[in-house]
Amino acid sequence: MRVLAVDDAPFRFDSGRAMVVGVVMRLPNYLEGVLRSECAVDGDDANRALEGMVQRSRFKRQLKAVMIDGVALGGFNVVDIDSLHQATGVPVITVTRDPPDLARMGSALRKHFPDWERRLEVLSRKELLEVDTGHKPIYVSLAGVGYPEAVEMIKKGMVRGAVPEPLRVAHIIASGLAKGESRGRA
Amino acid sequence: MRVLAVDDAPFRFDSGRAMVVGVVMRLPNYLEGVLRSECAVDGDDANRALEGMVQRSRFKRQLKAVMIDGVALGGFNVVDIDSLHQATGVPVITVTRDPPDLARMGSALRKHFPDWERRLEVLSRKELLEVDTGHKPIYVSLAGVGYPEAVEMIKKGMVRGAVPEPLRVAHIIASGLAKGESRGRA
Repeated sequence: MRVLAVDDAPFRFDSGRAMVVGVVMRLPNYLEGVLRSECAVDGDDANRALEGMVQRSRFKRQLKAVMIDGVALGGFNVVDIDSLHQATGVPVITVTRDPPDLARMGSALRKHFPDWERRLEVLSRKELLEVDTGHKPIYVSLAGVGYPEAVEMIKKGMVRGAVPEPLRVAHIIASGLAKGESRGRA
Repeated sequence: MRVLAVDDAPFRFDSGRAMVVGVVMRLPNYLEGVLRSECAVDGDDANRALEGMVQRSRFKRQLKAVMIDGVALGGFNVVDIDSLHQATGVPVITVTRDPPDLARMGSALRKHFPDWERRLEVLSRKELLEVDTGHKPIYVSLAGVGYPEAVEMIKKGMVRGAVPEPLRVAHIIASGLAKGESRGRA
């Protein structure tokens, strides 16, 4: 069972661009490919970057899901997972370790973005579901896949700790390349 | 048991620089960190790049070996593994899937490099040892580690096929980042 797991690299605001790393992994932990893209910090092209990654992957037809670390890339470049699912035909799962604080996000958005309502609508549209991992719970939102199936994939990807291995590896690669040596997350 | 496995990314000659990717992995296949460096294409700074990676790694004290895909990085930027071992205190293992053709390398070096004798001496100094992997054999050269111990590490790192997992992953990351999506090697 193959998934594409995506994380963004730490970025400097003055650069304006954030690197996005995707790993294609056969669950639980057999790495088959790495893809790189980028998006604008606080921009609105996260979906385009992710669609491009899926389309470019030679594993496209075998992808059972796109897993995204978080609900946005490059700051507030929010991912519309319904639209990503529709454009690619691949189910999408966002994974966060802390439930996003929508009230706080909303007020930050309102302050800084003329199109804050659109961004907030995307962030608020999907129900946030808790997944019991045996460790700290994680929180997911889903497009194109039901809760039981998503939980099964997440658990299939867990090797140690609560973070599915493909997302843990995407995180290590993205931050290692941006910073020198990455730190894993337990 | 942790190793640092290193591969260079495909490069364009006109860029003059080759990206070098290192992965810190607990054998057989638990990724703990990713490091990035670079060296000059056909230059003489491969050792410096590798020493820097080892020194920068927060896992430095736990590294049981540096594994290098091939005997040079960025074209003919040859790695002096004795000197790398001396500078870092960490054993070094080069791994190739085909035995390097020293006669051909020698004549290429002679044609293009004023310091061809030094490069050829480094390439020729270490004995090339065959390792039976149960698949196609691979060839190693060693500094600071005996053959039985090196074979044990290599076998501990094998998951599928003949290439130890840390080197397979370093290769996929390096080529994925350089090219879009990498192709694994079986």
